[in-house]
Amino acid sequence: MAKDNKPRRPKAETPKGFRDYFGADVTERNEMLDTIAAVYHRHGFDPLETSAVETVEALGKFLPDVDRPNDGVFAWQEEDSDWLALRYDMTAPLARVAAQFRNELPTPYRRYAMGPVWRNEKPGPGRFRQFYQCDADTVGAATVAADAEICAMLADTLEAVGIPHGDYIVRVNNRKVLNGVLDATGVADADQQASVLRTIDKFDKVGESGVRELLGKGRLDASGAFIDGVGLTDEQAGPVIAFLTSKGDDAETTLANLRAAVGDSQIGQDGIAELEEIAALLAARGYGPDRIQIDPSVVRGLGYYTGPVFEAELTFEILDEKGRPRQFGSVAGGGRYDDLVKRFTGQTVPATGVSIGVDRLLAALRAKGRMGGVDHGPVVVTVMDRDRMADYQIMAAELRAAGIRAEVYLGNPKNFGNQLKYADKRNSPVAVIQGSDEANRGVVQVKDLILGAKIAASASLEEWKSQPAQFEVARTDLVAEIRKILDGAEG
Amino acid sequence: MAKDNKPRRPKAETPKGFRDYFGADVTERNEMLDTIAAVYHRHGFDPLETSAVETVEALGKFLPDVDRPNDGVFAWQEEDSDWLALRYDMTAPLARVAAQFRNELPTPYRRYAMGPVWRNEKPGPGRFRQFYQCDADTVGAATVAADAEICAMLADTLEAVGIPHGDYIVRVNNRKVLNGVLDATGVADADQQASVLRTIDKFDKVGESGVRELLGKGRLDASGAFIDGVGLTDEQAGPVIAFLTSKGDDAETTLANLRAAVGDSQIGQDGIAELEEIAALLAARGYGPDRIQIDPSVVRGLGYYTGPVFEAELTFEILDEKGRPRQFGSVAGGGRYDDLVKRFTGQTVPATGVSIGVDRLLAALRAKGRMGGVDHGPVVVTVMDRDRMADYQIMAAELRAAGIRAEVYLGNPKNFGNQLKYADKRNSPVAVIQGSDEANRGVVQVKDLILGAKIAASASLEEWKSQPAQFEVARTDLVAEIRKILDGAEG
Repeated sequence: MAKDNKPRRPKAETPKGFRDYFGADVTERNEMLDTIAAVYHRHGFDPLETSAVETVEALGKFLPDVDRPNDGVFAWQEEDSDWLALRYDMTAPLARVAAQFRNELPTPYRRYAMGPVWRNEKPGPGRFRQFYQCDADTVGAATVAADAEICAMLADTLEAVGIPHGDYIVRVNNRKVLNGVLDATGVADADQQASVLRTIDKFDKVGESGVRELLGKGRLDASGAFIDGVGLTDEQAGPVIAFLTSKGDDAETTLANLRAAVGDSQIGQDGIAELEEIAALLAARGYGPDRIQIDPSVVRGLGYYTGPVFEAELTFEILDEKGRPRQFGSVAGGGRYDDLVKRFTGQTVPATGVSIGVDRLLAALRAKGRMGGVDHGPVVVTVMDRDRMADYQIMAAELRAAGIRAEVYLGNPKNFGNQLKYADKRNSPVAVIQGSDEANRGVVQVKDLILGAKIAASASLEEWKSQPAQFEVARTDLVAEIRKILDGAEG
Repeated sequence: MAKDNKPRRPKAETPKGFRDYFGADVTERNEMLDTIAAVYHRHGFDPLETSAVETVEALGKFLPDVDRPNDGVFAWQEEDSDWLALRYDMTAPLARVAAQFRNELPTPYRRYAMGPVWRNEKPGPGRFRQFYQCDADTVGAATVAADAEICAMLADTLEAVGIPHGDYIVRVNNRKVLNGVLDATGVADADQQASVLRTIDKFDKVGESGVRELLGKGRLDASGAFIDGVGLTDEQAGPVIAFLTSKGDDAETTLANLRAAVGDSQIGQDGIAELEEIAALLAARGYGPDRIQIDPSVVRGLGYYTGPVFEAELTFEILDEKGRPRQFGSVAGGGRYDDLVKRFTGQTVPATGVSIGVDRLLAALRAKGRMGGVDHGPVVVTVMDRDRMADYQIMAAELRAAGIRAEVYLGNPKNFGNQLKYADKRNSPVAVIQGSDEANRGVVQVKDLILGAKIAASASLEEWKSQPAQFEVARTDLVAEIRKILDGAEG
């Protein structure tokens, strides 16, 4: 059939796992990024914008849970040349820049970066393949004062974007303490160490007694199946249990418990000393445990962390899609990674930083109703006489010159109802109408669409009569009259 | 040898054709984007942010001069699925969105979009594979009032970012007029038509007599080689020559000349009528030929334009890399493309828009010295006593609370000279110094680095003595004293 020969039309679809953002979703995110950038900047951090594309070689393989082709990144090969890929975070490009420009950049180098990152993951509900990150890192500072500064700045940033004191907590731990706990168990075999770490991760699910069984001989799970244990003695398991139950009411108690847990492991003691110094620096600046606290349960997934790790969690509840209350959870995380630059240069460069998940943070603020007020569209100047387009354009220009968002209706003007429907769809506050009769008399009709909507929704006949939503004003008063309506709508 | 077994280190290199942006290069571009967005927004345009990735199918093939693999885009195949690619402009994603969301979006749909686009081109000096575009388009408006609005808004935008009246010109032409000229020649053969268009493009190089020869029997070029002509008669060539020489001192003259050139070609007459309407609308709003003018020499490359086309050019001269003055040239362009959405839906959707090349515009402003004032770094609080880090952090926090950019030096504090070198490298205005002696006396040393640099550069001994660049202030006056220095530096 002839129809089969027609070229197939392309599908108009956002690629799977990607999103389009419209209107306020764009501007609200930009405003949040600006606010975060201002906090970072005030702390001495300089902006850096690398390209979205890196060589696969430079990116390295630091993504967790990678079981997809291209190792979790979107990659392609240059003609007879390098493999290139989209960045999957902001840290890998920073390590590349820190190595490439090490002679030009100041040391320490404090930088911030914000923009999209891409993950080649299976798309799913709420899981997207492009999302925004907003990072701050200090490269070249070995002191944990740099980690403390990042934690304090993270708290300041959350408050700056509208998460008040009490609605978030920054938790701090140290990878070295975890290594110390492994030391203290006396387990030397790498596989067995890995089993211990996996068991630690199950603490939330199975509790103290469950972990005890899993570290020892094993355990019957809920389904009745027997799970083999790691095979540690009670004595070997002791430090792990002590570590898992070390959190006290204040930093001193927690640190004392941790000290007991790691015993005489040097790396463990080093880690605790670092946490102690961080806690002291934060306490001196007034960041108490109500905002930032030592918490041994923080075990960030990425393999590259080498010292302090931190995570910011929102502590308020929101309703999930089924209407059940749940904690919002993590919106930012980071830590110290002293070996990333070394990949390029062979020399250890101490570095620490944080990454804020901007999209999650926006979702949290929206869920709490702290974002997304009424977003009025432009004033719409309607078109009554097609050949008087210039007059309408001049009205819109006058309004804009006064700082008022305004446009002329540019669809087919034949059906006037469509023009008002358009103004409704744009959420316009005001429509301006001028036919030839009004033009001859030097007046315009001004239709207050905000008031109109209110009256339509709720007003009595009395009110309807006393507050006409459409009225005539002198052409020369157009801007002033509309300004009045807009000021009234804001007040 | 053992050394050969070492894993090769990755190269720390920006991929070829890509760039990293540091510090003010990032903030200045963001400020420009904000300014442009504000103008677009005030004109009623809504932000849209599509993802960087589209299906190759949706992107289509609209790039000019494509002789590279992947047709000029960076593309890769999903596992057993679609080919995906990075967007090469903002128009193709808009066409996809306009088709996909046609039932939800208002008609007309005015949107703006800003962000990077990617071109898989051979990198070269000044040619980059990722750059910023900042577009505004109106979809669903058939009237040329929409084109006129875009041209006026483009002029407003250039002035808003700092290109004053007189330093730019927006030139407007119409593809239909070009089609009318072809009609008027009587040439019906598609190949011969294409030859005529190619010859028109050589007008700048070979002038009127050259074009006359090339349209006719042919021409000896500068090297002595004979270039075959298109083979038109003088009569057939007439409309082309008339078109190429049609530009007059004002719109009326130009339009009259064009009218003569296209003869009784209907599409040509339509195009001229559109230009006339655009000129009238712009004149009514006060955009004279000193800002926006009809110019038949504008022939934008992209094949998808169907009506008015426009281009903004900066008219001032800058010095090129060899110190020779040259015109800066084009920074924005656009036009009407009525068939892009049709690819998806089968229905013609009228659309028009403009794209500003933000990186070029920034380069122009920098070349004119209208950007990049002194960009001071943060106040640097130096570290004299490592164990008093908390005190230094508190000083920096106090300064930040007063809105002053400040940081504590976090490198190795042993060598104090390095701390001051660091402050220099950061272009810090002030360094703060407090040893244990000062701490005990409740004072700090404040080092005015701006004044210090001035004195070092030029001052006499007298001035040196009368204006000490380093002085002692009470710890409690720290913020106030630094505020004084910063205010002085700005004044």
